[in-house]
Amino acid sequence: MENFNAPIGVFDSGVGGLTVAREIIRQLPQESVVYFGDTARVPYGSKSKDTIIRYSRQICRFLLTKKVKAIVIACNTASAFALDTVEKELDIPVIGVVKPGAKTAIETTKNKRIGIIGTEGTIKSELYTKFIQGIDPEIEVIGKACPLFCPLVEEGMLHDPVTDEIASRYLKDLKKENIDSLILGCTHYPLLRSTVGKIMGPDVNLVNPAYETAVSLGKLLQEQGICAEKNHESTYRFYVSDAEEKFKAFANSIMPFEADSIEQINIEEY
Amino acid sequence: MENFNAPIGVFDSGVGGLTVAREIIRQLPQESVVYFGDTARVPYGSKSKDTIIRYSRQICRFLLTKKVKAIVIACNTASAFALDTVEKELDIPVIGVVKPGAKTAIETTKNKRIGIIGTEGTIKSELYTKFIQGIDPEIEVIGKACPLFCPLVEEGMLHDPVTDEIASRYLKDLKKENIDSLILGCTHYPLLRSTVGKIMGPDVNLVNPAYETAVSLGKLLQEQGICAEKNHESTYRFYVSDAEEKFKAFANSIMPFEADSIEQINIEEY
Repeated sequence: MENFNAPIGVFDSGVGGLTVAREIIRQLPQESVVYFGDTARVPYGSKSKDTIIRYSRQICRFLLTKKVKAIVIACNTASAFALDTVEKELDIPVIGVVKPGAKTAIETTKNKRIGIIGTEGTIKSELYTKFIQGIDPEIEVIGKACPLFCPLVEEGMLHDPVTDEIASRYLKDLKKENIDSLILGCTHYPLLRSTVGKIMGPDVNLVNPAYETAVSLGKLLQEQGICAEKNHESTYRFYVSDAEEKFKAFANSIMPFEADSIEQINIEEY
Repeated sequence: MENFNAPIGVFDSGVGGLTVAREIIRQLPQESVVYFGDTARVPYGSKSKDTIIRYSRQICRFLLTKKVKAIVIACNTASAFALDTVEKELDIPVIGVVKPGAKTAIETTKNKRIGIIGTEGTIKSELYTKFIQGIDPEIEVIGKACPLFCPLVEEGMLHDPVTDEIASRYLKDLKKENIDSLILGCTHYPLLRSTVGKIMGPDVNLVNPAYETAVSLGKLLQEQGICAEKNHESTYRFYVSDAEEKFKAFANSIMPFEADSIEQINIEEY
C-alpha cells in the first residue's frame, strides 16, 4: 500500500534521458522521479552487450536503494541490450524506450516505410529495425545516423542556422525514401523536433519515443494499481556519476523547473 | 643492439592520436609505428585519474607485447594523468603530448599571453595552465573549450562553411585576449589548423603539440642512441578496442597511405 507514492527510477548514459524524465513529469505530474545519468561512462553506444548489462544492473541496484516502484531505461542502447535481463531479475516493473517508440511507428505507418534517425551505435546495431521487423516483416526500415545532433544539442544550439544546415544534410537522402513515419531514435533528438519536422514536411509523422514511453509508463502504473495519489506532492532528484555542474546546466535548460537536487555518486560501488 | 628497428608505440583514447602518429611518420620515416586507439572506452576527458592510469597501464602492457622501444602517449588527458606513473614503471622511454606543446608555447610567446583550445575535459582540468605556470608563473593562460570541433573533424568536415562558422563563434572571445600563441590542445585540432589560423590571424602563432611531440621523440631517440637504421623499411600497424571499420575510414582520410593493418583487440585482457 505504502509504495504508491514511491518514485519512478529513470536512467540513461548521460543527459539525453532527461527528455524522457521531462515527459514523465509532464504526463504524470503526481509521480516522483529519481534520475540517474551515467555521465562518467557515456557513451553506451560503442560498448559491448555484456558491459551494458553490467552497468544497467549496477544502476538498477542504485535506484533500488532509492525505493523506486518502477524503472524506465531511458537509453536506446541499454533498452536494447539490458531490458530483458534486468526485467527478469527485478521484482518491480521495468520498461525501455525502444518498444514504445517502435510500436507507435508500426501503428501509424500506412505505406510500411519507417525512417529511424539515431547515433551511429543505434543505427549500426539495427535495434529498431530488428524489433519492428520482428512484429511486421513487411515493414521497410530506413536508418540514418546523425552523429552531430547530440553534440549540437549539448551545446544548446537547438534553434540555430548551423543546426538547420546540418539537419538538412543528414535528412537529404531520407527525404527521398518515401517514409511516412520517422522515429527520433536518440533521447536528445526530441529537442530537435521542430528542426527535423520542418525539413521532413507535414506528411511524415515524427515518433517521439520519450513521449510514447511516458504514455506506456502511465498505462503500466494503472494496470498494476501503483499510481501515486492524486494530491501527492512529487519530488525530483537527480544523480550522476561525473561532472554534475555540466549536467545541471543542461537539465536547467530543458526542464520546466530548476533542478537543484543533483548529486554525484560512485556508481561502481553498486 | 637488435631493438634499433623496433617500433614506436603510440596510443590515444581514439582516432585523435593519429595526427601524432602522422607527424612521427613524416618526421621519422625510418621508424615503425604500432598505434593503439581505445575506441571502446573513448572519451578519456570525463574519466577519473585512477581510471586513466589503469587504462594507460593496460595499453602499455599491450604495446610491450609488440616489442616497442619507446611509447608516445598521444592523448592529452592520459599525458596529464598517467605519464609520470607509467614512465617510472617502464624500462623504455615514454613521452606525452602536453609537455612538448607547452614548452614550445612558452618559448615562442613574447607578451606572455598564451591561449589554449581543447575539449571541455582538457580546459576544465587546466592541465596546460598548470604545466606552463609551473615553469613561468608570469604567463597568463586563457583557455576555451571547443566541444564541437572533435565531432566535426570525425564527420570529415575539415573544410566546410559550418565548421568555419562554429570556429568563429568559439574563437570570438579568444581573439580579444591579445594572445600571441595558441596551443591546439586536442589531438583532433591540427586538422582544423587552417580554419583556426584564418580566424586568429597571422600575429598568433599556432602551436601544434603533435608536431612538437614528434620533434621531441626524434631528439629522445637520438640521445638514447636507439634510432632505426636509415635504410630500415618501416611498418605501420593499428589496433583498436572497438569499431575498426570507423577507425579505418578516419585513418585513411588523414594518413598519407592506406591503413590496411587494423585489428580489434580486447584491451581489458592486458
